[in-house]
Formats: sequence, structure tokens, C-alpha cells
Amino acid sequence: MVVVMKKGATPEQIKAVNERLLKSGFNVHLSEGVNRTILGAVGDQQRLEACSIEALPGVENVVAILKPFKMASREFKNENTVIKVGNAFFGDGSIPVIAGPCAVENRERFLTTALEVKERGAALLRGGAFKPRTSPYSFQGLGEEGLKIMAEARDITGLPIVTEVMDQKSVPLVAEYVDIVQVGARNMQNFYLLKEVGKINKPILLKRGLAATVEEWLMAAEYILDSGNEQVILCERGIRTFETYTRNTLDLSAVPLVKQLSHLPVIVDPSHGTGKRELISPMSLAAVACGCDGLIVEVHTNPADAWSDGPQSLTPHDFELLMKQVHAVKMAVSDGGCEGLQI
Amino acid sequence: MVVVMKKGATPEQIKAVNERLLKSGFNVHLSEGVNRTILGAVGDQQRLEACSIEALPGVENVVAILKPFKMASREFKNENTVIKVGNAFFGDGSIPVIAGPCAVENRERFLTTALEVKERGAALLRGGAFKPRTSPYSFQGLGEEGLKIMAEARDITGLPIVTEVMDQKSVPLVAEYVDIVQVGARNMQNFYLLKEVGKINKPILLKRGLAATVEEWLMAAEYILDSGNEQVILCERGIRTFETYTRNTLDLSAVPLVKQLSHLPVIVDPSHGTGKRELISPMSLAAVACGCDGLIVEVHTNPADAWSDGPQSLTPHDFELLMKQVHAVKMAVSDGGCEGLQI
Amino acid sequence: MVVVMKKGATPEQIKAVNERLLKSGFNVHLSEGVNRTILGAVGDQQRLEACSIEALPGVENVVAILKPFKMASREFKNENTVIKVGNAFFGDGSIPVIAGPCAVENRERFLTTALEVKERGAALLRGGAFKPRTSPYSFQGLGEEGLKIMAEARDITGLPIVTEVMDQKSVPLVAEYVDIVQVGARNMQNFYLLKEVGKINKPILLKRGLAATVEEWLMAAEYILDSGNEQVILCERGIRTFETYTRNTLDLSAVPLVKQLSHLPVIVDPSHGTGKRELISPMSLAAVACGCDGLIVEVHTNPADAWSDGPQSLTPHDFELLMKQVHAVKMAVSDGGCEGLQI
Amino acid sequence: MVVVMKKGATPEQIKAVNERLLKSGFNVHLSEGVNRTILGAVGDQQRLEACSIEALPGVENVVAILKPFKMASREFKNENTVIKVGNAFFGDGSIPVIAGPCAVENRERFLTTALEVKERGAALLRGGAFKPRTSPYSFQGLGEEGLKIMAEARDITGLPIVTEVMDQKSVPLVAEYVDIVQVGARNMQNFYLLKEVGKINKPILLKRGLAATVEEWLMAAEYILDSGNEQVILCERGIRTFETYTRNTLDLSAVPLVKQLSHLPVIVDPSHGTGKRELISPMSLAAVACGCDGLIVEVHTNPADAWSDGPQSLTPHDFELLMKQVHAVKMAVSDGGCEGLQI
Repeated sequence: MVVVMKKGATPEQIKAVNERLLKSGFNVHLSEGVNRTILGAVGDQQRLEACSIEALPGVENVVAILKPFKMASREFKNENTVIKVGNAFFGDGSIPVIAGPCAVENRERFLTTALEVKERGAALLRGGAFKPRTSPYSFQGLGEEGLKIMAEARDITGLPIVTEVMDQKSVPLVAEYVDIVQVGARNMQNFYLLKEVGKINKPILLKRGLAATVEEWLMAAEYILDSGNEQVILCERGIRTFETYTRNTLDLSAVPLVKQLSHLPVIVDPSHGTGKRELISPMSLAAVACGCDGLIVEVHTNPADAWSDGPQSLTPHDFELLMKQVHAVKMAVSDGGCEGLQI
Repeated sequence: MVVVMKKGATPEQIKAVNERLLKSGFNVHLSEGVNRTILGAVGDQQRLEACSIEALPGVENVVAILKPFKMASREFKNENTVIKVGNAFFGDGSIPVIAGPCAVENRERFLTTALEVKERGAALLRGGAFKPRTSPYSFQGLGEEGLKIMAEARDITGLPIVTEVMDQKSVPLVAEYVDIVQVGARNMQNFYLLKEVGKINKPILLKRGLAATVEEWLMAAEYILDSGNEQVILCERGIRTFETYTRNTLDLSAVPLVKQLSHLPVIVDPSHGTGKRELISPMSLAAVACGCDGLIVEVHTNPADAWSDGPQSLTPHDFELLMKQVHAVKMAVSDGGCEGLQI
Repeated sequence: MVVVMKKGATPEQIKAVNERLLKSGFNVHLSEGVNRTILGAVGDQQRLEACSIEALPGVENVVAILKPFKMASREFKNENTVIKVGNAFFGDGSIPVIAGPCAVENRERFLTTALEVKERGAALLRGGAFKPRTSPYSFQGLGEEGLKIMAEARDITGLPIVTEVMDQKSVPLVAEYVDIVQVGARNMQNFYLLKEVGKINKPILLKRGLAATVEEWLMAAEYILDSGNEQVILCERGIRTFETYTRNTLDLSAVPLVKQLSHLPVIVDPSHGTGKRELISPMSLAAVACGCDGLIVEVHTNPADAWSDGPQSLTPHDFELLMKQVHAVKMAVSDGGCEGLQI
Repeated sequence: MVVVMKKGATPEQIKAVNERLLKSGFNVHLSEGVNRTILGAVGDQQRLEACSIEALPGVENVVAILKPFKMASREFKNENTVIKVGNAFFGDGSIPVIAGPCAVENRERFLTTALEVKERGAALLRGGAFKPRTSPYSFQGLGEEGLKIMAEARDITGLPIVTEVMDQKSVPLVAEYVDIVQVGARNMQNFYLLKEVGKINKPILLKRGLAATVEEWLMAAEYILDSGNEQVILCERGIRTFETYTRNTLDLSAVPLVKQLSHLPVIVDPSHGTGKRELISPMSLAAVACGCDGLIVEVHTNPADAWSDGPQSLTPHDFELLMKQVHAVKMAVSDGGCEGLQI
């Protein structure tokens, strides 16, 4: 931690900061510059919160040197975390694709779509039983009924299932039914929910918050890891920007960035990330090219008839084509030519 | 709702959209323009979600005409909602000031601060018993112990108390102790929590989300109203922007804007809104000048010693000065000269 | 400057950074922490660009300690810069109000509005002769003809005039006609234009860029100051955020913040800052309450008939009311009660 | 254009809007809904600016239906614009790579780098002779001297050269020396500069503004096209977001989006787009995978010694590797498997 004193800070103020740092167990290096006095504090940053120093008289600024996440960092664990779900592996260099409709609407439709995506190469099924909706008047999902339909689809297809949990109380219920429990973007900093899913023994799909930085996202993962669950799959799903032609702005640079900072697998959701059907395929391929560990894509047997998110769902036919392209691009980047790929 | 067809949409596609709208009970006006065909759908928009139309072949865009919030809107209820808590009124033209430390740290400190802010004119006490922290390693609050200390402070000072609830499960506990239950920025779209606080009989202080639009904020209020609780106090607390010198960017234009769109009272939090002690007073006065219904300000008996948010806390002395200034500005805007104030 | 080395940086890498810093004339303090080695470089930061250090092998991060602006800073010049234009003073604690239509549309209308705003207390006239328009097909202003009309209005009313210059080549022409030359938000980082207006002997009204930080804004002012023109008036005009109900988000916290960081006067443009007529008056009063040095407000004799920006223009009648309110709030904050105002 | 009247708008107000629209040559369809009256105006939207309607009494909102860009749109010109520079083609499905240092620092270094990138497959050379710098105290480029060095490098390598022009006055000078004239992000809405480069007979590389929407970017292109220059190459270079680990957030979804909306070629700058050397290669491959028409990459013979942007420059060795990977990914997406790619 580096503490920058204000120009004209008094010797007493500098002394007070120095003493506070020493008392907290830091070694302190004092540098009196031309314009500023700086105190470099060496030690375990966790012992002291930066802001308590920032409030001391004469302090201009406190600069943290270490990144705040620990268990999620590559420094803590150097090798990739690989998460196995059914026959799929997240983090081992393969590209498992999770596919299915936005919401589970009814038994027949879901089973139809499930079979269609399985046939075309999906490795897992997705579907929403509890839906986070901006409006209380929008369809909120089928609830446990939806979970049952998903479980039936798993029995039929053999594919593991993924669904979102929106509140602490439902965690046991959801965890009982599904193979991967998703925490949605709006709940990325719902810390009680993070702690709750940190206590179960199922992989967690943690979506990036709507306007979250990569650091905040990794800190959310840290909550889950710190609560005892080491199986966290991160999911980039677009961030909010000024752009209005797309629903969100898919931040693909987060993929190689997170893979440098963390050992956790990162997958990409081009459906929510763009909100436009025509952009799903190109952005899926881009995600593969920059090193993602999987994709989660909305597919609906009849998008024009979907109860939610139809405009960002692929048809089964489009999905089939996409799977071929994903494979081709994956081959290209895994090939000899890309061996030295700087990820 | 206005549906814009793509250039070159076929008559069949237009017909399909038309039929879907008619089936949903809308009256449809068809306009064939030079470059685009447009369908204006007149009726109850709630019956149909825009996105299901957007997914139909040939549709370029769907434009919603009505605002999505209903119970929160001035159209639904024209007169201001006035919420009485103890002797304070939110929404009647007065400026109740809620003051206290960021976190309840221990009994003695909290009681000291409570007496200090009461003496200087605070109308309510604030304090955090459950703290939403980005890091799992930061101080998370005293929990129920903190609630008890706050309740004792209420007994001693006679001032009502406000604290944040972070999860559904704790709602009954928190509601038992405090007079106003706060929903924090990170939980603004924690829809289950919104529904839960919508069932209790205490006023809710609903903070605006970190990157939320005014519409999303009012939709969050709508969740609470729709669940049966009509006592919602909105709180502007700054939004995320590119600016790094301040913690957030306090969006004061949200105050007169929300008062036009909604009947609910709006208060302002200049402490979280700026993150800098020196900006709290000027921004508090600005909030009063543009018509806010109250303030919530962090005051700590010794900010340099605070466990959290010291840099954005006023000393009791600064707070005393601020209260005088708030009074002066309020007088000025309420005066003859400002009678026609365009709010 | 503080240089943070990567975990595992080699002694050779650390040595190389050390030598580069020494060669550039810095004194270097080396701190070997538990997890990171840090080099504190004390000296004149201008001599070395941070990024050249950042590119050295083994460097994780370079943290600048000093703010990059010099001539614009309060450290460079402690007392407020006061700029006199006609009988108006910017920076002396008064609130000169600049008023007029967005664009000069024709002679008659402009003269009418000019007389109307003068009568109601405006201190200067504004009007656009060259208009920055997103679309090449929109009205681009009357050009020199507009300047002539403005000059005539000055002759008639005695009020100084303000207009925007959009390109280097027109600087001499505009400077010949007007009393304050405005650089618009879209040109805040048009560095050649900044240098050009830095060479003339007229005050410059420098608007904040659409998505500019306060630091970038002050660096733009630095370009003008460094080119020889010390008369810079800063103008907050709203920044881009996700909010769609307002045209921009007026960042009023920039007012007290800039007044702490810099000696330059700061005025506020609530018309562009909000884009909504109903918000102009409340936000003007808020700007006064938080310490602005002036206002620039769009007034049109008949807003519904304006060629541009009608929705954000006041009528002369509204403007009259606003002037009274501005006066009342200014009195309140200047009064005894606000003497200790923390700005 | 759709005009939404306020709830409770009077018949007179509706009539006034109707008449204004008719007078401007529109056909008007009036829809009286349950809650709102809507007027659909069919005709040439360019004739009337939306905001003049928005200012009429009783109007709540005006919604534009047509996109504001014309000459830049696919509706105006369906086939891809292909721009030939030397032996390179932008827009024909190939991926020409522009490479070179951020700034031209001296003759020897530039010629060395030029030969190195040529050898490794670069199709054009880049280099800055005029540098837009946030600080007036930073290195501003060698000016004409830099242009001469670039021209010499072209003579030696046979590769066309690209450089930025920052001001109107220098347009003829720059155009005389270089093969592609670049307009930088900070000048994207410097409308006079856009008009000036619209008059020359050289291709223009138009970078997206720091916080520009895709629509604003295409409108900037429209300025150039409308001034007579049809050779515009768009360049995505990252937008500003809250993320601090990267310099900007590269918006790759803009690539397939712009290619849908426009016939102009789009290239990608992963160096400025990320600001981190380790992210350049993965993001270059992602750009290729989602359909870009070229890349512009910073390469420096010794990044640690570069005068600017060293941290985001590749070494010649990394560049060689990247060129192979780009080729492999391009092959994959052009292949049979990707024939139906939804771009």
C-alpha cells in the first residue's frame, strides 16, 4: 500500500500515518519527494482497510498495490481449475456448449428443444425456471415445475442441466435438481446468495454484473471460494455501455484477461451479450478465438413464439451451423500455428 | 407500442405481425411509409411483451410508448406520497436529515454519535449492522448486536432508526428493530428481496443501483408497491461513471426528474454519492436547491478512526454547520422568490 | 511515481528499472515486500513518461503520484482566477448568467431575445453561429452572418457576447467579433484548436467533453494555459451516462471538485446538461448552491419554433423567474449561515 | 417519425403538432390510444428535425424510425465497398494487416521496424508523425520530418503508409505524403476535419470515438462521404467503460453490427483497444473470427524503449507468430464449415 500525503502535510500528520501503519504490522518506507511525501507500507494488506488510512488528516490518496482477490488468483493457484460436469470439462481446453431456451415455457417445448440441441452437439442444457425480470408484471418463470421439466429433459437426453437461482431460500431446491447452479448478473453482488451457493457441492456459473469491473467479478467469485465451493465457472455476458443497437456490449477482452489473472474457467454468453440473433454466431466464434472455455447460447425451437428473449435465440438450424464453425475455429487456434498463442 | 418492419418486409410478414397484435387484443394502425412499414398497436401493453414481437420475421424494431411503471407513476397517483416516521415527514416539502456512522462499530461510539447528531438537528439515525462489502475479508457488520445498539440509541434519543437489510431471511429480524428498512444499491434488482420488503409494514428506503437508469429504479419501486407496501422512499446515491476523483457521480437531476415521473419522495446521499468529505456539504445544499425530500449523511464522532467510510464522513462540527446551511437554502427555495419553481 | 514489479520479477529486471529511473534523474527507494517489489521514484515526473517504464520486462504497473496538470492547479496558483468580461466577473463569487438561443436563426429573433434576456438580468449573450451537429444534413449555423447579428445585439444591449468556434481556421474571425470564445464538448481534445485559442487575447469558455474525466478536462485547460492564454472559464455541461430520460447527466459534483483542484472559474450549462426544459431551473439553483461561478442558459423567445434545441430552452418568462430564484439561493449560500461552506 | 403526446394533451395541442407535420410534407396517421395519442409521420425525415417537434406544447416524446445515416448505409448501397491501397484490399474478404510503431521516433528505428514487419507479412505501415497527447508536455511527434521518414520507408519496403492527421490545416501536407489518412478517436466529431478529409482523394481511416455509439460513428463517416470522399475505412479501437485493467474495452460486436448496417469496411485496432501486449494476439484472432476487414497493430523493434505506447506494442517476433495465427483463423472462418456464417 502506498500512502500519498497532501502537499503541505505537517510532520505530525506524517508521523500519525506512520504510526498507524506500524501499529498494523507494516514495515514503512518514507520518501520525501519534491512535492509530496509518500509512505510505502509493506506487509499483509488484509490487516488494514485502505479507507481508514485515507480518513487520516493530511492524506491525499491511498494506492493499493496488491490485487484484492486471493483464492481466485493465479498467484494463489497456478494451474487451471478444471470443472467436470457429466461428460463436459470446463477449463481443460475444450469448448463445451450449453444450449437451450431462455425460459422453460412448457414440458413439450422444452423437451423438443433439448433433443434438438443434443442432436447438434450441445454438451449441457440451459433453461430458466426462475426469471429475473425488470418488471413485476412480466412472466417470472414456472418455478419448481420448470425444474422438474428440466430434470426430465436430463433423463431423456443424458445432458446435465443449468439454471439460475435468484434467492438464498431456493438454493437447496435448485441444487437438488440441477447440475450447475447459475448466479445471474443482477445478483453478482448479492453477497448472501454468494455465500449460500458457496456452501453447496455443485459447480456455480457466475455471470458478470451489468456494470461490474473484472476485479469486482473476481471478488464475487472470491466470496464463493471463501465459503468453501471451489467450482466456479465465470461467464462474460456483456456489460452496459452507451451503445443502443446492442442490448449489452460483450467484453471479449475479459476472456484472456481473466485467464491471466485467475485459474478459473471463463465461458461466454453471446445471446445476452448482444441481444441480437445475427450477432450470436460471429461473437461465438470470436469468443472461441480469444480462448474461452465454453459457450452458453439461447436456442429455441421457434424463436418468434418464445415467451422471452426470442430476438436473441438461435433456431436449431442456425445452432447446427454454429457448432460446425465453433469446431473449425477451435481447431485453428489449437493447431500448430497457434501453439504460441499469447493467452 | 410501435412496430417498425424491416425495409423489404414481405406482406406475409406484415400480416403475421398484425395478426399477433390483434390476437393480443390491440387495435392496430398500419402506416406504409416510403422506407418502412409501421404498425401502431393501441391497447394494454402489459398484455404482450415487446420482445415476442421483436422476434417475428421481418421486424426491425419495437418501440414502447408507455412507461413501464404504473403504481409508482404520477399518472397513477397525482399527489405526493408523504411518509411519516416518528416526527419526520418525507414528501411534505420538509427536509428531514438522517445522520450517523457508516457502520455500527460499538455501543459507546454509536451512542455518542447518536447524541451528537440529535443535538445538531438530525431527524433520524442511520447505521449499518449488515454491511455489503466487495471483499469477503472486510468487516461485515455486527449483525443483530448492531441492531440492538441502534434500538438503544433510539430509546435514548427518541430518533427513529434506519438500517440496511441485505437478504430475504433477515427481513423479519431487521423490521422488528428498525423504523425504516433500507435496500442497498447492490440489491436494487434483487427481486426476491424487493418482494419480501414489499410485504412488511415499514417504510423502505430504496437506493438507486450503481449503474441503474431512473426507469429501472422506478421499476424496482414498482416491485415493492406491487407486493403491497406503499411506503417507498427513493434515495439517489450516485451512479458509476468514468470519473475517478469521486467515488460515484451524484446524479442530482434525478431528483426533479423522479418528482415529475413519480409521486414517491426522493432523498439524497451525498456521502456515498461523492466519497469525499469536502464535497458532502456543497452537494447537500445542491440537493436541497433542486427539490429533494431529505438527506442521508454519514457523520462519525472521529472519522479518522472509523472502520469504514471514514473519508466520506462529516465530523459533528461540520454537520452542525451543514444543518444551518441546509436550513438557509431551504428557506430560499421555499420563499416567495421561488414559488414558481419548476419542479 | 511508484513502479510495481510483477511477482517473480528477476533481480536483473528490477535492476534495469532502477537504472532507467536513475538515468532519468529520479531518486529511487526500493521496497521489497512479501509479494511484490516496489520502486518509489522521487523527482520531476515530467521528465519521463510512465508508459516507457510500463513496457520494461517484469513491470506490473506504474502508479502516478502527482496530478498531471500544473498551471491549472491550485498548487501552482492558490488564489482564484477572476475573469472580467464587460461588467461581469467570473470567479469573484458572483453569478453572471449568460443567456440566449442555441443558434442565431435570424436578425430579428436574436435581437428580440437579446433584449428580453437583458431586461431580465442576463450579464452576457450567447448564440451559435457555427453549430456542431451530429448529422451533416442538420442546420449548421449562419456563420459570419450570425457573428454580425450577435455583434449588433451587443451594440444594442451593451452585453458581451459568447459563441463557439469549431475549427482553427475560424479562430481569428470569431475572436474579432466576440467577447468570449467557446470550445465545445466535442472539441475538448481537439488539441490544435486548444493551442490556437491559447494564442488569442480573449477569455475561453472550455466545455467539458462528453465522456471526459475531470483530469482530462483540466489537461485540456492546461493546453490553453500553456499556449499563453490564462483566461479559461470551465463549463460543466453534463456527461454521457446510461440514463436516457435526460440528454446528459449534469455532474454538479465537478463544481466543488474543480474548485478544489484548480483556481479557474467553473460555470454550469443546465440546458445541454439535462436537455429538458423542466429541469433547467432546479439544476440551475443546485449549481448555485454548490458554488458555481456562473450559468449559461438557453432562452428562446418561442422555444416551440426554435431551429435547434427548443426542448431545452426557457421562455423569457421562465427565465425571469429563474433569475429571482438564483438570486435568492445565492444570498442564502453567501450569508452568515454559509460562511463556513466547505468548498 | 412517431410523436407521442403527453397524457392529457389538449385537442389544440394535438392539432398544432398535426399541422406542423403536414406543413413539413409528412402524411400523418393519428392513433388515439387508451393512455396516449400518437401521431405517425410518414415522409422524408430529413426535412424536419425531431427536436423542433419535441418543443411543441403537449409533446412527450419523438421517436425516430429511420436511421439517420444514408450514404453510409447498406440500404443506400448494398454491395461491400472495397478499398484498394497498394496491393492491399479492404472489404474484399481478405485481412490486410497494418503494422508499425505508435510514433515515428527516428529514421533508423522506423526503417528497421518497417523492414521487420514487411518481412513478417504486414501489408501496410503505420506510424505517428502528429501525436494526440492528453498532456501538452508529452512528446507530440516529429511532424513533417516524421512524414518524410515514413515516405522513405515506403520507398524501401514498397508498403503503403498510414498516419493520423489532427487538424484541418495539415490535411494537404499529410495527404501529399501518405496513402491512407487517419482521423483519430478524439477527432471523430471534429466536423471541420471530417469535411476537409472528405475533399481529398485518399482513403480515410476513421477511428471510433472514445465514447461514441455506432450510430455517431457512422454519422461521422457520413460527413466524409457527403463531402465527396467515398473511401472510408472504419476502425474499432475500443470504447471507454468502467474497466481499469484494460485501457479501453474493445467492442468486437461492432464489427458484425457495422457490417450489417453499412457497406464500409471495418478494421480493428487491438493495441489501443486493450492497451496490453498480452491481449493483442487473442483479440486480433477474435476480430478475424467475427469478420473484420483488417487489423492495425503496434509493433516496435524494442517496445521497452518506445517513446509512447510501449506497453501495447508487439515485438517483431510476437508479430510473426500472430500473422500465422491470423491466417489460420481466417482459413477456418472462410472454409466450407463457415460458409453460412451469419454476418
